[in-house]
Amino acid sequence: MAHKFINEIEPGETIDDIYMVREPILRSTTRGDLYIAMFLSDRTGQSNGRMWQATEVIYKALPKPGFVHVQGRSELYQNNLQIIINNISVVDAEKVEVDDFLAKTDKDTDKMFDEVKKTVGLIRNPQLKALAGEFLADKELMEKFCKAPGGTALHHNYIGGLLEHTHNMLQVALAILPLYPDVQSDLVLTGIFLHDMGKTEELSYDMAFSYTDSGQLIGHIVKTVLMVNQKADALKAKGTQIDQTILDALCHIILSHHGAYEFGSPKLPATPEAFMVYFIDDLDAKLNQVTMAIENEPGDSNWTAWKNALQTRLYRKQIE
Amino acid sequence: MAHKFINEIEPGETIDDIYMVREPILRSTTRGDLYIAMFLSDRTGQSNGRMWQATEVIYKALPKPGFVHVQGRSELYQNNLQIIINNISVVDAEKVEVDDFLAKTDKDTDKMFDEVKKTVGLIRNPQLKALAGEFLADKELMEKFCKAPGGTALHHNYIGGLLEHTHNMLQVALAILPLYPDVQSDLVLTGIFLHDMGKTEELSYDMAFSYTDSGQLIGHIVKTVLMVNQKADALKAKGTQIDQTILDALCHIILSHHGAYEFGSPKLPATPEAFMVYFIDDLDAKLNQVTMAIENEPGDSNWTAWKNALQTRLYRKQIE
Amino acid sequence: MAHKFINEIEPGETIDDIYMVREPILRSTTRGDLYIAMFLSDRTGQSNGRMWQATEVIYKALPKPGFVHVQGRSELYQNNLQIIINNISVVDAEKVEVDDFLAKTDKDTDKMFDEVKKTVGLIRNPQLKALAGEFLADKELMEKFCKAPGGTALHHNYIGGLLEHTHNMLQVALAILPLYPDVQSDLVLTGIFLHDMGKTEELSYDMAFSYTDSGQLIGHIVKTVLMVNQKADALKAKGTQIDQTILDALCHIILSHHGAYEFGSPKLPATPEAFMVYFIDDLDAKLNQVTMAIENEPGDSNWTAWKNALQTRLYRKQIE
Amino acid sequence: MAHKFINEIEPGETIDDIYMVREPILRSTTRGDLYIAMFLSDRTGQSNGRMWQATEVIYKALPKPGFVHVQGRSELYQNNLQIIINNISVVDAEKVEVDDFLAKTDKDTDKMFDEVKKTVGLIRNPQLKALAGEFLADKELMEKFCKAPGGTALHHNYIGGLLEHTHNMLQVALAILPLYPDVQSDLVLTGIFLHDMGKTEELSYDMAFSYTDSGQLIGHIVKTVLMVNQKADALKAKGTQIDQTILDALCHIILSHHGAYEFGSPKLPATPEAFMVYFIDDLDAKLNQVTMAIENEPGDSNWTAWKNALQTRLYRKQIE
Amino acid sequence: MAHKFINEIEPGETIDDIYMVREPILRSTTRGDLYIAMFLSDRTGQSNGRMWQATEVIYKALPKPGFVHVQGRSELYQNNLQIIINNISVVDAEKVEVDDFLAKTDKDTDKMFDEVKKTVGLIRNPQLKALAGEFLADKELMEKFCKAPGGTALHHNYIGGLLEHTHNMLQVALAILPLYPDVQSDLVLTGIFLHDMGKTEELSYDMAFSYTDSGQLIGHIVKTVLMVNQKADALKAKGTQIDQTILDALCHIILSHHGAYEFGSPKLPATPEAFMVYFIDDLDAKLNQVTMAIENEPGDSNWTAWKNALQTRLYRKQIE
Amino acid sequence: MAHKFINEIEPGETIDDIYMVREPILRSTTRGDLYIAMFLSDRTGQSNGRMWQATEVIYKALPKPGFVHVQGRSELYQNNLQIIINNISVVDAEKVEVDDFLAKTDKDTDKMFDEVKKTVGLIRNPQLKALAGEFLADKELMEKFCKAPGGTALHHNYIGGLLEHTHNMLQVALAILPLYPDVQSDLVLTGIFLHDMGKTEELSYDMAFSYTDSGQLIGHIVKTVLMVNQKADALKAKGTQIDQTILDALCHIILSHHGAYEFGSPKLPATPEAFMVYFIDDLDAKLNQVTMAIENEPGDSNWTAWKNALQTRLYRKQIE
Repeated sequence: MAHKFINEIEPGETIDDIYMVREPILRSTTRGDLYIAMFLSDRTGQSNGRMWQATEVIYKALPKPGFVHVQGRSELYQNNLQIIINNISVVDAEKVEVDDFLAKTDKDTDKMFDEVKKTVGLIRNPQLKALAGEFLADKELMEKFCKAPGGTALHHNYIGGLLEHTHNMLQVALAILPLYPDVQSDLVLTGIFLHDMGKTEELSYDMAFSYTDSGQLIGHIVKTVLMVNQKADALKAKGTQIDQTILDALCHIILSHHGAYEFGSPKLPATPEAFMVYFIDDLDAKLNQVTMAIENEPGDSNWTAWKNALQTRLYRKQIE
Repeated sequence: MAHKFINEIEPGETIDDIYMVREPILRSTTRGDLYIAMFLSDRTGQSNGRMWQATEVIYKALPKPGFVHVQGRSELYQNNLQIIINNISVVDAEKVEVDDFLAKTDKDTDKMFDEVKKTVGLIRNPQLKALAGEFLADKELMEKFCKAPGGTALHHNYIGGLLEHTHNMLQVALAILPLYPDVQSDLVLTGIFLHDMGKTEELSYDMAFSYTDSGQLIGHIVKTVLMVNQKADALKAKGTQIDQTILDALCHIILSHHGAYEFGSPKLPATPEAFMVYFIDDLDAKLNQVTMAIENEPGDSNWTAWKNALQTRLYRKQIE
Repeated sequence: MAHKFINEIEPGETIDDIYMVREPILRSTTRGDLYIAMFLSDRTGQSNGRMWQATEVIYKALPKPGFVHVQGRSELYQNNLQIIINNISVVDAEKVEVDDFLAKTDKDTDKMFDEVKKTVGLIRNPQLKALAGEFLADKELMEKFCKAPGGTALHHNYIGGLLEHTHNMLQVALAILPLYPDVQSDLVLTGIFLHDMGKTEELSYDMAFSYTDSGQLIGHIVKTVLMVNQKADALKAKGTQIDQTILDALCHIILSHHGAYEFGSPKLPATPEAFMVYFIDDLDAKLNQVTMAIENEPGDSNWTAWKNALQTRLYRKQIE
Repeated sequence: MAHKFINEIEPGETIDDIYMVREPILRSTTRGDLYIAMFLSDRTGQSNGRMWQATEVIYKALPKPGFVHVQGRSELYQNNLQIIINNISVVDAEKVEVDDFLAKTDKDTDKMFDEVKKTVGLIRNPQLKALAGEFLADKELMEKFCKAPGGTALHHNYIGGLLEHTHNMLQVALAILPLYPDVQSDLVLTGIFLHDMGKTEELSYDMAFSYTDSGQLIGHIVKTVLMVNQKADALKAKGTQIDQTILDALCHIILSHHGAYEFGSPKLPATPEAFMVYFIDDLDAKLNQVTMAIENEPGDSNWTAWKNALQTRLYRKQIE
Repeated sequence: MAHKFINEIEPGETIDDIYMVREPILRSTTRGDLYIAMFLSDRTGQSNGRMWQATEVIYKALPKPGFVHVQGRSELYQNNLQIIINNISVVDAEKVEVDDFLAKTDKDTDKMFDEVKKTVGLIRNPQLKALAGEFLADKELMEKFCKAPGGTALHHNYIGGLLEHTHNMLQVALAILPLYPDVQSDLVLTGIFLHDMGKTEELSYDMAFSYTDSGQLIGHIVKTVLMVNQKADALKAKGTQIDQTILDALCHIILSHHGAYEFGSPKLPATPEAFMVYFIDDLDAKLNQVTMAIENEPGDSNWTAWKNALQTRLYRKQIE
Repeated sequence: MAHKFINEIEPGETIDDIYMVREPILRSTTRGDLYIAMFLSDRTGQSNGRMWQATEVIYKALPKPGFVHVQGRSELYQNNLQIIINNISVVDAEKVEVDDFLAKTDKDTDKMFDEVKKTVGLIRNPQLKALAGEFLADKELMEKFCKAPGGTALHHNYIGGLLEHTHNMLQVALAILPLYPDVQSDLVLTGIFLHDMGKTEELSYDMAFSYTDSGQLIGHIVKTVLMVNQKADALKAKGTQIDQTILDALCHIILSHHGAYEFGSPKLPATPEAFMVYFIDDLDAKLNQVTMAIENEPGDSNWTAWKNALQTRLYRKQIE
């Protein structure tokens, strides 16, 4: 049976479906009866849930967070949808269609990955080609690469976001590299393909987007450089030596691609290629962030709420 | 007679040509004889000049700076070329071929301006089209636009630099706008075409590149906004009204295109179009700055000297 | 009938008057009855309002924000005044005495404006005199100038605040200019008179204080410079030419009067006059902000709450 | 015999007078003869001095820096005045008219100090009056107060500069206090009178302006607070107790009068009085700095050289 | 009768004890009955308190904050302990065992103070020895020194915290001084002993930790310097002169021990001793802050909540 | 024959020894004769060298920089030692005793390394012990570790500086770890031992101290993390697995040990161990920097020159 998405529920419907439950709390009314308040969500949004006549036993059994099967009905409360729960039971995360619960790119993942591979195929320098190939040949890693989000909060924060961001950056690079003939395209293309690869290890995205312990302690920038060196070591074991000069130029692009110390880059861009990758990354990330913020702003005001990361509100009135 | 360029002079040649003289100073040798030390330059470089047996009268007659006719010979002194002057006389600036003395873009100015016009021709919004057209119709301004440098020091600092920079930005925009369908292309194209127009008034570039008084007091960003408003007023007088909403969206792009308060933008980008113009401007300016710094670095070190504006030295060893 | 101001209502009174309503929300009690919570305000303060036995129809009819006629009674609830509403009906904003609802300077507007005109009359430079006169002759603008607030939040944030701030700055300038004979008083007086004129367009202040779209995209600093140039163009059309040198010196004062890039000035002060206007502006704004914060702090603590814009709490115990 | 000031010497004069000598160095010509190069200065400027046919014995006897009696002649060398020395002998600093050698306020010191005393006489709070009086009664300190410079480099850097700065600030305060009735004038006047008193200990100004060891380790701000507390202790010993509340409010003004942590204030302004003193100090210091920089700029350019402390060049063209 | 500590109360117990009450507020239920909500606390934690069937008379009698005798019972509400109050009466703060209510160091105060005295006894320079001795001889001050907290929020924020912090810093200094023979140990030991002495006046810690008025206006750094100078004056009156050089070196350590202007140090470290004291202070404060934050974090996550002062979350998983 | 050190040469000696030559330039006297000016140096200092009657052939043969055999004599010129060169010939760098030319720690390298090994031997965690052991077993690396400088400019910038710095930090850690029982000593000791290991690759120190290309592109922080991972991979290949948790905690210490983004740390300290290593590193580096700056300051002023990295001059007068 198809999942009933949160943003499709009308007031007055019967509910009998699986949702993610977050932050359940046990409360009592002023008359002393216990009830449980919680959030129920899937990838399309979230709703308040209320279970009246609850008990501590029920409360303690709830995952925090996790998946539950909910039976009840929907109603309108203070102009917002609310789900009144009659029965609630825990559901094993493995039995859940995770795509229903995590936001996902609305672009075609397979097509994007094909285009990424095609673009990587344009690299002519044999060593960079071999290195990129070693990554492409790592099935497990490429699966994660196609699934990981681009971040937890600011931009491309959905399943497939890392791929979408990388794919878009490669398209931008292909479009503008002819305008800058002094910039070495092989380094730019390899640098873009790999620049955020460490996010596959920095982020966890099984049930919600968060950082792994390792991700928080080391960060995706250094993790990516470690992966590049491990692949280079693996290639060397197979007889293909990557020159230190090439490895340094590539790792410098990765280390400096945030463009400033305060954004976690331990090195500032010092080559034309590093500058280009930094600018394309910033352009693509910010435009995704800005257009998503504008799209997701509720109401019809000309301005979004204040965006702290951008130090401004955004204006969304179109001309014409 | 063709000008003998500084970078073509070999030691031991007879010199009989016009050069720009800068910073002449009267000195005396330890034996008490007076001589004049000066720099002689044209757009290809500069050389030390020495006039032995000089007098205060000769010294006082020299322009500081200005053009002089020099007769003498070249020699090698401490591995550098030096010009020993026998006769020196002042030359009227109006009789000088200014192109010989100011660095100039090595791209084809006419072709670039044609492409700019063609790109501006793609604007469909009638009001923006009219506004851009009003600028294109201003012959005197367009002449300055094709001649002005893009800056005095950091990037595109040569005759035609403003045009080259604007042209390049338009090419980048055309290449990437299809990848960002939510961004309004008419605003981006008009914004790029006009973004630095005030530099025609901010900078003087007759004999050397410097700031006008007005340029230093007001700055090219506000000057550009004033020009846009004056053109809109002129259009209005002719019966074409530019909506305040369109004018605001356009002027916002101009005001915010430096991307940060500390770089003189009184507003931070708050629309997708403002973000895109800011990124393309920064990308094109920095890549010009980086590749020129790499090209102009003397010697064969892998690294340039420290670049303060970039807070790094630049690495220029190519892979392969 | 005179308006009953919020800060004059005692518990237990019958209420039958017009108030501004903000942020109404529909809630339900634990027993399921609907009620509406809202804020009712006028320029003297605000109170909670509660309408029990409400319906969604009533809720939907309420302006958010806007004016309403309220019938009910006042009571004390948790030591705060609360208004229990029996009937509520929408009132057309045009029928409302707006002065009752927006905070207003407690100084005499006419007298202040007269003194401003008298001070402007002291300007001797004929061009600056003409330019200031052109502003004074713009009736519509001068009406806004006398009515606009000085800001939305930090200082002089009340009707007439812009006039009060400008008036006070002129008084300070008159008092200290004799102590600094090297500072050109005509530029200082004209600069102060005009420095925030763009706030008449940046801010809206019909029902509450906020920014206009144009104000947020362009900012009052650049708007002021545009107004000065438009007045100069108008004068020119009438045969009075303002020298570019004078226009630049004046606009430089306006552009730099926030004193630092991070406060939105695209130029830093570079003339004695610009420094003086910047200091007088900062002095008057900060002293207004500080004394208002001290006055408005509830309770009798020696210290106000933390003031983020000043990075400190304020101490208000008087000596003696 | 009246001192022949440096800025009055014409080329070709016989020199027989006392000057301050700084940075003498022993050099040899390319033919191996020894000579001494040095700077000779008084309060009106400095000139190069050259003693040909010098010896190491003469060189070693020269003070570095100190006063010397110079006999020789003036000449023009590379358009600058130079003094050729035949005889040079050391002069005891105590026998020198120090006023000839240190720049000095061009205002009347006695008159300024009288006005300071008169202004301090306006303080009505008996405790602040007593405290200020204790300072005025300290003859030795008041002598230093009238003689000390206001700083070593940026503003009021001449003998009498501290008095001139304090006097000017008091005049500004008297002029604007009536416009800010909520500000306690007694605290402001006492605060201004004392705010930089510690500079009498922070700076040394016998032969040139520099910092004392104690001044560099502690700073004039904390030194001033220590002086205030010692005077209060002295008053207490005589039976006049200064309330801690008053002492705290006064010392807070002194501690916060630089207005920002990065300028050495350990506390930010937190009272209206502290804000007013901070603004008046900054206004008077910056206007002195700006007008002196403009006045002292050589040449006739519209712009001064870059002023690092102000992050701009200064524009000095007058209107009209 | 021993105090029943908050963290020892189980649900369902009878309560009859003294607690500190904070932030009582009078509320009404949806049925209109009045009740009082409040926090009850001692040094081990805090609990919600509810008094149903309350009156305004009872509410007004409650101290805000202060001590109360509470009779009632404990219960579990929403998984948190809550105290239902039947009777509540005010208790005189002087009759209360304050140690029960303020967090306190878990180290032995007497032993730490003995070790501080012993360490101070190692100072060999007779003047520094005399100065430290003058502090040790001030019984009243030493009592405060042993009782004051080290701060209000970030580190050592408990009774005895100042002593614990000073004691620990002295132990660190003793351990590492032998490794840095160029650092003058007498200055370091005296500097550490006295560095935060002004906190005895900056902070109040009778019933809760807060700043005194004087503390907020002046700050503990300057207060400490004032105390040192007053002790030196007192010694001088008794015939022991402290050289200005020694006083300056010591006060410089105190003034610069926060290491940066933005942390309230009006001077940056300029001696090896000042650097060492600054580093030991920062090391001990941060390690206390970090380990306390880790210890006090509820739940069993590997990470604490975001710590703004450290700009990170803290990781607390142990290896092995 | 023992090397004659620069700082031992008296005027008037015959010179016949090897020195490093830097920045030779060919000049001509005013009479047109060619001569070569250069610096001659060894680890004790440098001297001007002059070769009169030089030729372009001689000049071109000189290494820039490199080693030369110099024959000539010393003389005093302008109070400085100068070497007049009669013959000069190039010397192969391999035949030179490099210790004579590079500054070197004055501590016993063997003894320090023994103590480092002993301290590392105290690590009890078997995985950290194995990892540290893997580094100790790498002979070639340990040789570099004992020879590399601690930096190029600010601190420990001499042969053996890296070892001395690491050794000192370990001693400090051993001394203070008992005072902080919550800090895991094994992580601290391993972290200190390895924290700067990448400097062996970041710096080159054959003839002078500089950065390698790879060092400038990647930096020693990331290089160290790469080395740790490669050693862990090597151990794994031998059957000893290092847990990811342990590797992350260790690498986090290394990545965050500069304590701030602007100093090149891509992560801020987030564990007690990371804080401790950061503080000990900063303490030891700054105290080395401060005491060396004080020691090396020429003259007998109480103050050193301005130290930009510390934003102060340093005071070096000792008490007593």
